[in-house]
Amino acid sequence: MKFIFSLVFLLAMGNINSQSVQSPSKAITLNFKLSENGKPNYAVTYKNKPIILESFQGLKLKGGIDLASNFKIDSVKTSTFNETWKPVLGEQATIRNHYNELTITLSQTKVNVKVNIIFRVFDEGVAFRYDFPKQQKLNYFIISDEVSEFNLTGNHKTFWLPGDFDTNEYIYEETLFSEINTDKVNLNNGIGFKAINKKFMVQTPLMMKSSDGIYLNVFEAAVVNYPVMQLDIETQTYKLKSSLAPNALGDKAYLQTPCVSPWRTIMISDDARYIVSSKMILNLNEPSKIDDTSWIKPMKYVGVWWEMHVGKSTWDYAGSQNAQNALDKELKPSGKHGATTANTKRYIDFAAKHGFDGVLVEGWNVGWEDWFGNWKENVFDFLTPYPDFNLKEVNDYAKLKGIKMIMHSETSGSVANFERHLDRSLNLMKEYGYTAAKTGYVGRIIPRGEFHDGQTMVNHYNFVAQRFADYKMMVNSHESSRPTGYNRTYPNYIAAEATRGNEFNAWSTGNPPMHETILPFTRLLGGPLDYTPGIFEVKMSYYNASKKEQVHTTLAKQLALYITMYSPLQMAADLPENYEKYPDAFQFIKDVAADWDDSKYLEAEPGDYLTIARKAKGTENWFLGAITDENSRKTEIKLDFLTPNKKYKATIYQDGKTADWQKNPINYEIKSLLVTSKTKLKLVLAAGGGTAISFFPIN
Amino acid sequence: MKFIFSLVFLLAMGNINSQSVQSPSKAITLNFKLSENGKPNYAVTYKNKPIILESFQGLKLKGGIDLASNFKIDSVKTSTFNETWKPVLGEQATIRNHYNELTITLSQTKVNVKVNIIFRVFDEGVAFRYDFPKQQKLNYFIISDEVSEFNLTGNHKTFWLPGDFDTNEYIYEETLFSEINTDKVNLNNGIGFKAINKKFMVQTPLMMKSSDGIYLNVFEAAVVNYPVMQLDIETQTYKLKSSLAPNALGDKAYLQTPCVSPWRTIMISDDARYIVSSKMILNLNEPSKIDDTSWIKPMKYVGVWWEMHVGKSTWDYAGSQNAQNALDKELKPSGKHGATTANTKRYIDFAAKHGFDGVLVEGWNVGWEDWFGNWKENVFDFLTPYPDFNLKEVNDYAKLKGIKMIMHSETSGSVANFERHLDRSLNLMKEYGYTAAKTGYVGRIIPRGEFHDGQTMVNHYNFVAQRFADYKMMVNSHESSRPTGYNRTYPNYIAAEATRGNEFNAWSTGNPPMHETILPFTRLLGGPLDYTPGIFEVKMSYYNASKKEQVHTTLAKQLALYITMYSPLQMAADLPENYEKYPDAFQFIKDVAADWDDSKYLEAEPGDYLTIARKAKGTENWFLGAITDENSRKTEIKLDFLTPNKKYKATIYQDGKTADWQKNPINYEIKSLLVTSKTKLKLVLAAGGGTAISFFPIN
Repeated sequence: MKFIFSLVFLLAMGNINSQSVQSPSKAITLNFKLSENGKPNYAVTYKNKPIILESFQGLKLKGGIDLASNFKIDSVKTSTFNETWKPVLGEQATIRNHYNELTITLSQTKVNVKVNIIFRVFDEGVAFRYDFPKQQKLNYFIISDEVSEFNLTGNHKTFWLPGDFDTNEYIYEETLFSEINTDKVNLNNGIGFKAINKKFMVQTPLMMKSSDGIYLNVFEAAVVNYPVMQLDIETQTYKLKSSLAPNALGDKAYLQTPCVSPWRTIMISDDARYIVSSKMILNLNEPSKIDDTSWIKPMKYVGVWWEMHVGKSTWDYAGSQNAQNALDKELKPSGKHGATTANTKRYIDFAAKHGFDGVLVEGWNVGWEDWFGNWKENVFDFLTPYPDFNLKEVNDYAKLKGIKMIMHSETSGSVANFERHLDRSLNLMKEYGYTAAKTGYVGRIIPRGEFHDGQTMVNHYNFVAQRFADYKMMVNSHESSRPTGYNRTYPNYIAAEATRGNEFNAWSTGNPPMHETILPFTRLLGGPLDYTPGIFEVKMSYYNASKKEQVHTTLAKQLALYITMYSPLQMAADLPENYEKYPDAFQFIKDVAADWDDSKYLEAEPGDYLTIARKAKGTENWFLGAITDENSRKTEIKLDFLTPNKKYKATIYQDGKTADWQKNPINYEIKSLLVTSKTKLKLVLAAGGGTAISFFPIN
Repeated sequence: MKFIFSLVFLLAMGNINSQSVQSPSKAITLNFKLSENGKPNYAVTYKNKPIILESFQGLKLKGGIDLASNFKIDSVKTSTFNETWKPVLGEQATIRNHYNELTITLSQTKVNVKVNIIFRVFDEGVAFRYDFPKQQKLNYFIISDEVSEFNLTGNHKTFWLPGDFDTNEYIYEETLFSEINTDKVNLNNGIGFKAINKKFMVQTPLMMKSSDGIYLNVFEAAVVNYPVMQLDIETQTYKLKSSLAPNALGDKAYLQTPCVSPWRTIMISDDARYIVSSKMILNLNEPSKIDDTSWIKPMKYVGVWWEMHVGKSTWDYAGSQNAQNALDKELKPSGKHGATTANTKRYIDFAAKHGFDGVLVEGWNVGWEDWFGNWKENVFDFLTPYPDFNLKEVNDYAKLKGIKMIMHSETSGSVANFERHLDRSLNLMKEYGYTAAKTGYVGRIIPRGEFHDGQTMVNHYNFVAQRFADYKMMVNSHESSRPTGYNRTYPNYIAAEATRGNEFNAWSTGNPPMHETILPFTRLLGGPLDYTPGIFEVKMSYYNASKKEQVHTTLAKQLALYITMYSPLQMAADLPENYEKYPDAFQFIKDVAADWDDSKYLEAEPGDYLTIARKAKGTENWFLGAITDENSRKTEIKLDFLTPNKKYKATIYQDGKTADWQKNPINYEIKSLLVTSKTKLKLVLAAGGGTAISFFPIN
C-alpha cells in the first residue's frame, strides 16, 4: 500500500513540475520544469528539433531576495486565445492573435513570495513574462537582475548590434555566434553618443539562422515601466542572458505589485517570411488606450532636413554650429540657415503640388548654435523660433495650401528640460495646428546617469506618447530606445527611428547595402520605422566634389524601401529640386500609400533580400517592393496576390541595365504593362538595388 | 644697480601677491595672498583680532584640472558700492547694500585657465565667490570639489545641525567646536527621510561664538545653478571646508562659462544683533527679475493642517495611510478625512470673520493613501480632488468670502512627476483663482540618486519659483534646501520651511525651547520661514490623554514668534475652535502684520533670547516680540523706536505668573497701557516663554 501511494505521489509530482504547451499548429512545443533547487527553466522545440535548450528563468531583487530558485509550483493553468483585431494604422486591416497560454503559479518557499511565469505559444514563436501578483510579502520592490536565459543549440549565423544602452545606431555585424565581440566593431562611424561597456553584449532583436535552416529571433514586447533588455552572451556555450539597462544607481526597475515584466520572445521558423511578417510583438501589447482614434492618420511628408545633412544649409541660424555664437548672446546669421520662412514655403508649395500630407522643419528654434555634446541642461526651449522663421506666417501658409506642419523637438538628451517645457510646446503646436511632432534624443541623458534604454527613459517615451494623445497629436521619436509594439497601445506613437537611419549615409561610413535587408527582421519587428527613404541624388559628390560619402543604394531601391520599410509616417527625404529632376521616378513616391489593408511577404532572407507586396488601405491598388544587399539578384514573382480576374496596370521602377550602387546608382528604367493575378514577373535587381511596382486596377 | 632693480621687483611682486580690503566701517579687514605653489588664500580680522586664519580657496574640476594651485595674479581691482533698494516684501522698507569689493584676477599657469575671486567686505562680514569668465580654455566644466576653507581661531561655542544633503529637519546641537560629532545626534526624532553619511560634517548657516565674545556665522548666498554647501570639519584644528552636495554620479556642479559660484559668507560682530539683523545675504543676491510685483502680497492664513498633525483628522480620504487602500483601487472613506468641502468652508468662514487673507488645505487630492516612503514615481497628479472635496464649490465660497485659497502640492520627493504636471497644476490654480501654493518634498528624490541639496534640485526649486512667477503666483516650499536669499531675485518665492518646523512638536520629540532662539541666527538669514506658529493648545494630551508630546512653549511665546520668525506668509496654525476659546490672546494674531517698514533688533543672544520690534508696512503700528529659551528671563526694553512725542496704546501679551512651558504653558496675561518713545517696559518671560506687544498710536 505504501509503495503504491508513493508511486502516485511521484507521478503527481512529476506531472506538476514538468509542463508543456504547443503552438496552435503544434509545430512549436514549450516545455517548462522546475529543476534542482526549485529553479524554473524552459526549453523549446520546433518540429521536434530542439531550438532552445533548458534555460533558467527568474529575477534577483535588491536587498537579496532571490526569485530564481527555491520555487515550488502552486498551480498550473492552460488556455487558448484566438481573436482578430483591427489596428488603427498597419500593414494589414485585421490581425489574428492566436496562442496557447500556460501560466505557472510559483512560490519561492524561503521568502514566501509568489511569482507567475506566463507563456504564450504562437505559430511564430514563444513568449514569456514574469507576473507579480499583489501579495502581503511583496509590495514595492527593486529588480537588480533578471535571469532570463536563451540557450541555443549551435553556432548560428547571427546578425548583431553591439550592446549599448544609449544607442542603436550601429551597422549590423553578420558573424557566427562564436565570433561575436564588440571589440571588433568599427566605432568611428558617426554615432553622436555611444556607451559600449561590455565586450560580449548584443542588442535585441537578435536575428539568427541555424546551420540547418531554422530562423530564430530573440526580442521582447511591451516594454512598459521596465528597462530595455539586451543580451549578455557566452560565445562558447551559445548562451544568451538578459541584461537590463541600469539607472544612475545601478538598479534596474522599480516596481509595485501587481505588475508584470515585458514579454521575452523567441520567434522560430524554417521560413524567414514568417518571422519578418509576424505580428506577435504587436499582439503581446495591450489594445489601444485611445478611444477616439479618428485623428490618427498616415502621413507622407517632406522636410527641411536632408539639405542640412548634405551641407546645403545649416540647422543653426548662425551657420557655424559653434558654441561661441551662443556665448556672444548675439546671433549672427550666415545666410545658410535652412529653416527660413521662405524656404519652408518652398517645401509647402512642393508638398501641396505633389500631394504630400506634411512638412517637417528642423532648425526652426533657437539653440542649435550650442546644442550637442556638452551634457547641457537647458539647450532648447521648444518654443522660440529663430528671427527668420515666422511661426504664424508658415502655419497660415501651410493651412492655405492644405498642408500639416510637423513640429521638431530635439531634446539633445535633456529630458528634464523637455518635460519642463512639454505642455507649453504642446500648446504652441495646438495653437498653430500642428498634428505631429518629431522628437530627438541625441546626446547623454539628463537626468544625469540615466541611459536611453533605462526604465526612466522608457517611462519618458511612453509618457510623451500619452501626453501627445491627450492633445490628439502624433509623435515620432528619434534616438529613443527601439519600440516593442507600444504603438498598438498608443497608436499615435506613429513611428520611431531608433536605428541607424538613412541620414548616416550623408556624412559617415554610412549603411552598407545589406542594412535595409536586415532591419525588417530586427528593428521593424517592434514597430514602424521613420527611416527617411527616397534619396535620388545618391552621391554626396553631387553637392561637393570632394565628398566621398554616398547612400549605399540605387535609386530604384530607394523607391522599394517605401514598401519594405513599413511606416505610416513616410518621408520623401530628398530635396524638392532633386525630385523635380526625376519626375518619372518621383511618381512612385507620389503614388505609394502609407497604410495598408494587406501585406504579402513574397521572399525573405535576412541580410540578403526581401520582397513584399501591399494593398493600399481602402483601395484595390497594390504596391510591391523588392530589395537586395550588395549582390545583384534575379527572381520571378507570381502576382497571385492580385484580385483574380482583374486587370491592373503595373508600373515597374527598376534598376537600369548598368545600374550598380557604387558605379551607377541613379541608372533606372520605368516600364508599364498590363497584368493579372496569373502573371509572373521577372525582376532583376542590381548590386545594392531594388524594384518598386505600382498596380492600379483598370476599371 | 642690479640690487636696486631686484628690490623694486620684489616690492612690486609683494604688492600684487598680497592684497587687502576693509569694510566701510574699517572694523573688518580681508587679506588675500597667493602662498607657495600659487595657492589662493585669505584671512580675516575684526577690530584687529584674527577671526579667520589663512584659509585656502579654489576648486577641482572633473578630468583633473586643479584650480586650487599654480595661480598667478593677473590684476587686482577694488571698488566701493553703496546703494539702497526696496524689497517687495520685507523686514524694512529700504535696505542698504554697502561694501568694498576686491577682485583678484587669477590665471592657473599650468592649464592656462582664468578664475577670478571676488571679495565683498560689508560692515557685518565678508563674502567671496569664484567667477569663471568666458575663455577659450574653459567652456563647459564639471566641479568635482570646492576647496573653500574657513580656519577658525579657537574652540568656539557652536550651534550645529548634522550634515545631511537631504534634510535640515534636525534639532540644533550646542557644543564646543571640538565636540561636534554627528554620531551623538538623536536620529530617532521624527524626520521622514534623512541621509547622514559623515561623522564630521555640519550644515550652514553655522553660528558660532568665540570665548572672547565674537559672533561668527558661516553661510552662503545666491545658490543658483550650484549645489548646497555644507561643511566638513576638523575638530582638532578648528578647520571648516566646503562640502558640496553631489549628484547621482558624485559630480557636484555642471557649469558653462561665464558663470559664478554662490557667495561664501562669514558674518562677524561682537554684537549678536548685527548678525541676526543683517541683510548681507539678501544683498548678495540679484535684484528682482520680476518687473511687475504688484501681485506679490503678504498673507496671513489658516489651514486644514494642524488638525491632521494632532490626529483629529487625516490627510487621506481612507483615513488609514495604508498602501493597501491604493492597491484595492477603491477608496473607502473613514469619516476622518480633514479636507472636506464642509470643513474647508468652516475654515473659510473663520478666516473671513477674523480678517485672514488665505486658507491652506492639505489632503485635498488623491494619493495620500500611499504617498510616502517607497520612492514611488507617480504618487500625486496635483489635479484630482478626493470625492468629498469640491474644488469649484470651495473656491466659489472662498471668493464670496474674500478669501484666497492656498494650493497644496506635496511631491513626496518625486520631482520628475511634479515637473510633468506643473503646468497643468498651475493652470488649475489659475482657473480657480489660487494666488499661492505650498510645495512639499518629503521623501527620497526622483530622479533617483539626486539629493534635496544637489544642483539638480536647487535648479528645480528655482525653476518652480520662476514658473510660478510666470503665472503671477507665490510659492512656499517645505522640505526644500534652505534658502540663500533668492527671494530677492524672485520675491514670489515668498517663504520656505527647510528647517524643523512647529509640526514636529505634535508627534515627535519636538523642538526644544531653544530652537526658536537659534533659528533667526541660522535658517532665517537665508529668507522667510513658514514656521507655522500660533499654537494655543500646546499639549497633545488635550486631544488624547495618552499623548506626551507638546509644543515646547508658552502660549505667549507663540504670539511673540509672529515677530521673531520673519515671514510675509504667516500661518495661524492652531484649530479655529482653539482660537475661539482664547479670543483675547488671538487678538494679537489678528492684529499683527506680516510686512514691515522697519525692524529694530533690541536684544539678541543666539540660543538664549531675542527681542525685536517691527513697524507694520504703511502704518504707525509697532509690534514687539521677545522670546527666551528654557530659562526664564527678565529684561527692560526702551521704547525709543516709537515716534517721539506720539502716544501709543500698548497691549502686552505676556506669560502669566505661574507660566512655564512644561508645567503651565497656557497661563498668560494681557494688559494695556499708554506709552511713548520714552517709556521703558519691564518684561518677564517664563521658562520657554515670550512676550508679544502691539503698539497702536492714539490719534
